[in-house]
Amino acid sequence: MRSLRILLPATVLIVTTAALLAVTRGQARTPVTLVVTGGTVVTEDAMRRVIPNGAVAINRDVIVAIDTAENIAAKFDGAETIDARGQVVLPGLINTHTHAAMTLFRGLGSDLALMDWLNQYIFPAEKKNVSPDFVRVGTRLAALEMIESGTTTFTDMYYFEDDVAEVTREAGLRGVLGESVIKFPVADAATPEEGLARAEAFIQKWKADALVTPAVAPHAPYTLEPETLKAVRALANKYDVPMLIHLSETQDEQKQIDARFHMTPTALLESLGVWTGKSVGAHGVWVDDKDMAILAKRGVGLSHNPESNMKLASGTAQILKWIKAGIHTGLGTDGAASNNDMDMFEAMRQAAFLHKLANMDPRAMPASQALDLATRGGADVLGMGTKIGSLEVGKQADIITVSMDGARQTPMFDAVSQLVYVTRGDDVRNTVVAGKVLMKDRQVTTLRRADVLRDARAMAERVRSSVK
Amino acid sequence: MRSLRILLPATVLIVTTAALLAVTRGQARTPVTLVVTGGTVVTEDAMRRVIPNGAVAINRDVIVAIDTAENIAAKFDGAETIDARGQVVLPGLINTHTHAAMTLFRGLGSDLALMDWLNQYIFPAEKKNVSPDFVRVGTRLAALEMIESGTTTFTDMYYFEDDVAEVTREAGLRGVLGESVIKFPVADAATPEEGLARAEAFIQKWKADALVTPAVAPHAPYTLEPETLKAVRALANKYDVPMLIHLSETQDEQKQIDARFHMTPTALLESLGVWTGKSVGAHGVWVDDKDMAILAKRGVGLSHNPESNMKLASGTAQILKWIKAGIHTGLGTDGAASNNDMDMFEAMRQAAFLHKLANMDPRAMPASQALDLATRGGADVLGMGTKIGSLEVGKQADIITVSMDGARQTPMFDAVSQLVYVTRGDDVRNTVVAGKVLMKDRQVTTLRRADVLRDARAMAERVRSSVK
Repeated sequence: MRSLRILLPATVLIVTTAALLAVTRGQARTPVTLVVTGGTVVTEDAMRRVIPNGAVAINRDVIVAIDTAENIAAKFDGAETIDARGQVVLPGLINTHTHAAMTLFRGLGSDLALMDWLNQYIFPAEKKNVSPDFVRVGTRLAALEMIESGTTTFTDMYYFEDDVAEVTREAGLRGVLGESVIKFPVADAATPEEGLARAEAFIQKWKADALVTPAVAPHAPYTLEPETLKAVRALANKYDVPMLIHLSETQDEQKQIDARFHMTPTALLESLGVWTGKSVGAHGVWVDDKDMAILAKRGVGLSHNPESNMKLASGTAQILKWIKAGIHTGLGTDGAASNNDMDMFEAMRQAAFLHKLANMDPRAMPASQALDLATRGGADVLGMGTKIGSLEVGKQADIITVSMDGARQTPMFDAVSQLVYVTRGDDVRNTVVAGKVLMKDRQVTTLRRADVLRDARAMAERVRSSVK
Repeated sequence: MRSLRILLPATVLIVTTAALLAVTRGQARTPVTLVVTGGTVVTEDAMRRVIPNGAVAINRDVIVAIDTAENIAAKFDGAETIDARGQVVLPGLINTHTHAAMTLFRGLGSDLALMDWLNQYIFPAEKKNVSPDFVRVGTRLAALEMIESGTTTFTDMYYFEDDVAEVTREAGLRGVLGESVIKFPVADAATPEEGLARAEAFIQKWKADALVTPAVAPHAPYTLEPETLKAVRALANKYDVPMLIHLSETQDEQKQIDARFHMTPTALLESLGVWTGKSVGAHGVWVDDKDMAILAKRGVGLSHNPESNMKLASGTAQILKWIKAGIHTGLGTDGAASNNDMDMFEAMRQAAFLHKLANMDPRAMPASQALDLATRGGADVLGMGTKIGSLEVGKQADIITVSMDGARQTPMFDAVSQLVYVTRGDDVRNTVVAGKVLMKDRQVTTLRRADVLRDARAMAERVRSSVK
């Protein structure tokens, strides 16, 4: 099946030569590992094809055909079948910014001023609790939540990222995982140099992995010295891995950088040569037109986090302008401490609502565009647009199915509108990553749900005690 | 049990004299009809008491005691019991503005400019489809969705409101139901005079009902002549029922009223004497400071509909100023055509997010305030604050229980934060109105789910054909 892994033009239906011959000769159907059949298939391909009563044939990790259920049934014999009748089948959702382990701080000290929240709750809680064990327990909880709500690829910035990677493999998710570098002493590094060394070891260890893309995550322009930022870029480029960074999240950040460098954070990083390689900026609430031109020119992807930006009152990112400027744009949830969940359906709905309001135009950010951001857009942000983000032959089989039979989802006039405006993560029935079924009919297969929740609750008791 | 219906001070634990005697003498426990036990009880009383491992004893339609599960078990013997262990128990949610039957237009023509959407989809669809049968099918679908998502009281403005009332009784919900009056010919009235006559007959028929509060619903200041608005007020006051009206929803409405009357809509209605009785205004996006002073003085309640206002790009209502001005403020979903669901948990979360952002302050609209709006606040808007909106002895037993064991809800540091930021309508397990269990462990008892969905889908096919 090696040839199928080659990336092929979007709308061409490709099957192996053997399969074609079999069909033309009226022979037996081609065996494949998995067939998802009977749902409304929202492909998110270049034509945004929607196939009523469609099906997807998957062999190992790759999509080998997308067609009507009837045609797929005639041509392919799946070792395993997912019956998606009455459901919508779509590409797995791509979360371009989160801190998975922070699920263990979900709802800790809500509704406070940002610095009070950080200083009274998050920083002390991190200082006293973050360990490899904490990160594994928290990431497992996040992975469970992501699988249950249809996220198939997530982008992480945290500490002990090697443990995050181990859990990501265990859960079967796809991850772009960034080991943090920051100028303060943190749980896994006393200095930024130590952080850089950890990041390099982490990258070396995971560079060849099929599901984990290792990355380096300088925290933010205001929490790192220029020399470290340059070193981070050099490290990322040495291994051709992405650099993940918080960028222009708050107005305060803009002021700090302006006071010291008389520039915007984006311009500062440009002046340091930090954008000269794969880069993802998170938030971008305050990037201005000149910044956008730089980010577009450098191919930097931006992650829009509408819920976090609203809940923390960071501001309204001008993402319609980003898109117009040609910036790769995706959606993120941010960590559960500041959202408070990892539901990418909520992120889509929130993006649609927020930008209609911000532009005072109900036509702004239609459902189709919000869905694009959470699928194709996210893939482009991560530099993985040829591999994931749509259901197309030759792409990785990252697929979810969503039930549409709830009272809340009745009637259905339009599948895409329904996905964005009335669907919740809990409606996801099946989650497939690289052809492997991580959740079948709401039963997660890769993690022991009860154990994950029990461990998370126990760890949360320690967190609670630590901030009393 | 007659004496229990008298309204009693909020924090006093009252049981019948017989029950007290029974307990003090060590006798048998007092029989009651229903006990909800074992959950974290979020009372929403004046003290905002939260009782871990609490319970609520209900006899017929009234709450007779709220205490720890242990104390309730010692004193009361429930004919029926709801086991709420691991759940949160709270007052049923109050939706202060919707158009229930419009669930049948859910997702019809999304993402268009307001007038295009109305002229191309909603108005033609209404003209060709709205009938008593349509209203019954649509309201049943809405009732199912509301029961399943924890709304116990809803406020409706539509046509054929007598049919809405019949379905409301059938479903067991509490409703404030307003028969529409508008200057254009509509499905149930060719003229506003006919609308007024229908409204009067409707009020007469339902005036004494325990669950249905009939009302008259003049559509909006810009769709009615001054004389009709005066007549509506006179009718409402004749029967002491509420008047429900759309108010300052869009900037365009402000301009229209200003062009004709050189006043704001609120000032116009004040000049006509329309606020001199029970009144609820929906949206209020554009009310100004002077308007707020009028609305506060007149005791007008306002319904904030954050999702509709964002999706239709109507604007941001200044509800923190409303509250400061002393205006009774609640939350609404608006019709499912413009939201697109009836989930009051989403309305709470959206209100919190929106007003933090609009005020650039993460402390604005904390979770506790958002929950207040959906419970106590809504009750005050509807003039029912002594009857519903909190779990207190003597109040009506409108109660919901919500599961908290999802991955998305783990861990739980604070019940109220969790209700607002990570709970969905689908987490509601049990819904009780006036002591009657409308949903037990996700099974709706008063409506036949499959029939409701089947009828809605069939009606939606007719809608689809009518707008092709």
